[in-house]
Amino acid sequence: MFFSIDRLSLIEEINKCNRIIDLKSPSPSITGICFDVSVDNLVLISTNTIISIKTTIKLNEMNLNIKQAGNILIRGKYFLEILKKMDDEIVNISCVENNIVVLSGKKLEFSLNILDYNDYPLIAFRENGDNITVNCNDLKKALNQTIISVNEWKQKIVLSGLNFSLKNGIFYIIGTDGYRVSRKRINYWSPQLEGKFETNIPYRSVLEIIKLLPDVGECKISIMDSYTCIFINNTIFQTTVLEGQFPDVNAVFPTDFNTTIFVDNKKFFKLISRADLPNDDNSIPVVNLVLENEKIFIKSSIHQVGSFEEEFDDFELKGIDDQNISFNSKYLIESLRTFETKMIEINLIDAKKPIVISSTEDDSLSQIILPMFSN
Amino acid sequence: MFFSIDRLSLIEEINKCNRIIDLKSPSPSITGICFDVSVDNLVLISTNTIISIKTTIKLNEMNLNIKQAGNILIRGKYFLEILKKMDDEIVNISCVENNIVVLSGKKLEFSLNILDYNDYPLIAFRENGDNITVNCNDLKKALNQTIISVNEWKQKIVLSGLNFSLKNGIFYIIGTDGYRVSRKRINYWSPQLEGKFETNIPYRSVLEIIKLLPDVGECKISIMDSYTCIFINNTIFQTTVLEGQFPDVNAVFPTDFNTTIFVDNKKFFKLISRADLPNDDNSIPVVNLVLENEKIFIKSSIHQVGSFEEEFDDFELKGIDDQNISFNSKYLIESLRTFETKMIEINLIDAKKPIVISSTEDDSLSQIILPMFSN
Repeated sequence: MFFSIDRLSLIEEINKCNRIIDLKSPSPSITGICFDVSVDNLVLISTNTIISIKTTIKLNEMNLNIKQAGNILIRGKYFLEILKKMDDEIVNISCVENNIVVLSGKKLEFSLNILDYNDYPLIAFRENGDNITVNCNDLKKALNQTIISVNEWKQKIVLSGLNFSLKNGIFYIIGTDGYRVSRKRINYWSPQLEGKFETNIPYRSVLEIIKLLPDVGECKISIMDSYTCIFINNTIFQTTVLEGQFPDVNAVFPTDFNTTIFVDNKKFFKLISRADLPNDDNSIPVVNLVLENEKIFIKSSIHQVGSFEEEFDDFELKGIDDQNISFNSKYLIESLRTFETKMIEINLIDAKKPIVISSTEDDSLSQIILPMFSN
Repeated sequence: MFFSIDRLSLIEEINKCNRIIDLKSPSPSITGICFDVSVDNLVLISTNTIISIKTTIKLNEMNLNIKQAGNILIRGKYFLEILKKMDDEIVNISCVENNIVVLSGKKLEFSLNILDYNDYPLIAFRENGDNITVNCNDLKKALNQTIISVNEWKQKIVLSGLNFSLKNGIFYIIGTDGYRVSRKRINYWSPQLEGKFETNIPYRSVLEIIKLLPDVGECKISIMDSYTCIFINNTIFQTTVLEGQFPDVNAVFPTDFNTTIFVDNKKFFKLISRADLPNDDNSIPVVNLVLENEKIFIKSSIHQVGSFEEEFDDFELKGIDDQNISFNSKYLIESLRTFETKMIEINLIDAKKPIVISSTEDDSLSQIILPMFSN
């Protein structure tokens, strides 16, 4: 095996593969990254059994020049550290002996021990499933906005990830832990996939997809068997999916409200952040919102720490001027943080019904939080 | 107790006190910060038994307005978090009940539980010792340049910190772990303190002094009994010192060399960084420097990882063009990082004698490293 390639581009491609690797895996070969060099391309593959990544560099892309085909299995971490320390624009990579790869530049040479390529499992990528195409930046934003409601350790397995579905011309991304729901809607018209395109992506996989998504361009989401693939430029990201039926949260979304508070998101966020009292013992921080006489009173207290009270009148109101409702302040803070609009709306029914946070400036996102019955 | 003060300034002063606190201390009162409010100033005090800090804010400084004197003992961490979340420019702090302090702004009020002031130990500050005055930035730089050679866990206690001494019109700051020496010289003429002014500052205390030192102004270093105080603006930093006789490293400094290599510091640093092969099992990374035919060959290898070799000719030479010497690459890298000058000099005698790194652009700093006998 012998090829040369642009050093910085190779770092980027190895980084994609290296991030998902579980160095604590009992099988050493799984901790490696495969380099498959053929006459016309270089393919890098890595896996952690849940997620697998395959990235392909074609001849002449990234200055790739292949002199001899071959396969090796490297330790990504060491390989990356060494590539980063080099100064050369182009790096030569060769393997003559079985267990050593040589990285060389103009005046220097690294010889690195490698793993045994023959120990690496064969990984099948399901590349031909039902698929939809979305904007990378839209998808990244949507995942960040909805992942907040997912509890990775939820006992009901299907809730420990995000639900993707296509219904009524809308691509829904939904997360819920039973106490709150994050829902993102992206218009997407595809009659032949209506009601058929649905998958549940594990929490960890969502985090990795977010890291992999660039700010520009489009990506393809493809589902097949119990796998979902995301095609991003020259890279295929494949994850196993969560089994089970995701609850139909759209059906339980409240639509009629007694009170709507229109408020500047930043100001309201700071107010609730103040009510979120510091504490070490992980007690659930409850914040109480009282609306009366066109004023909001925010109160909170934690036995060991102390208490907080603030009066707030910088908002507009529609509906009943009389509410008294309590929440988990962490949930409220995390929800508020997902809105990029200047103004938001807090929609209330009464002390026992879920609140819905939304924005008329961008109606694609809704955050629901169940109240707490602290009083 | 009742006073008001500029919120951001108070955050800064509490930060100074809070950093040194050991939250794992078995005595809860020691984890607090004392507020001593008298008619004309506010004094904050904290301690971790090794280091104590006292910072004084006079009436009208930082908008300090005292309405009623008194003493309280607060939990710094919570107090800081709450101050940071507030928006008000001025914060009111009052204590009416025994066990609660109230922080209030225009529209909000925090009530916080506090610790029992009567449990706090009396801390004596030795303010009137022998003292010298130095530029804060010079001192900060000197501490950063010399702390690298200190091993906090050294069995010989006196070596587990930095030595300050005044000899022959020079204020020396010296650190050594037995394998290397970092020496900084600052001109300082004070006949009455010659040979008398000497102290050994523990490693952790040095780190805290570095954090406390501003970029401008002067500070006073004062030694008395087994304490050293640093006076920085309105703050007194007091530390216990290390007992024992610090070795006279000046006497063992080599002065005659067979070879001097003049080299660009950044380029040489990158070269040695490359030779510092990645490894997980904490094996000592040995780097071998061979000088011959006006070329430097840098080699390194780690059994489990691999090997490295680079040829380097971008340097000037004085003396013998034939050396073969090995070092701990971490020591060499740390030493090179302390030089701010463009060019440095690497002074060699032979494979068994210490090397001295220095710079004619700034001769105040010298770094010595003992070679390793790897071959």
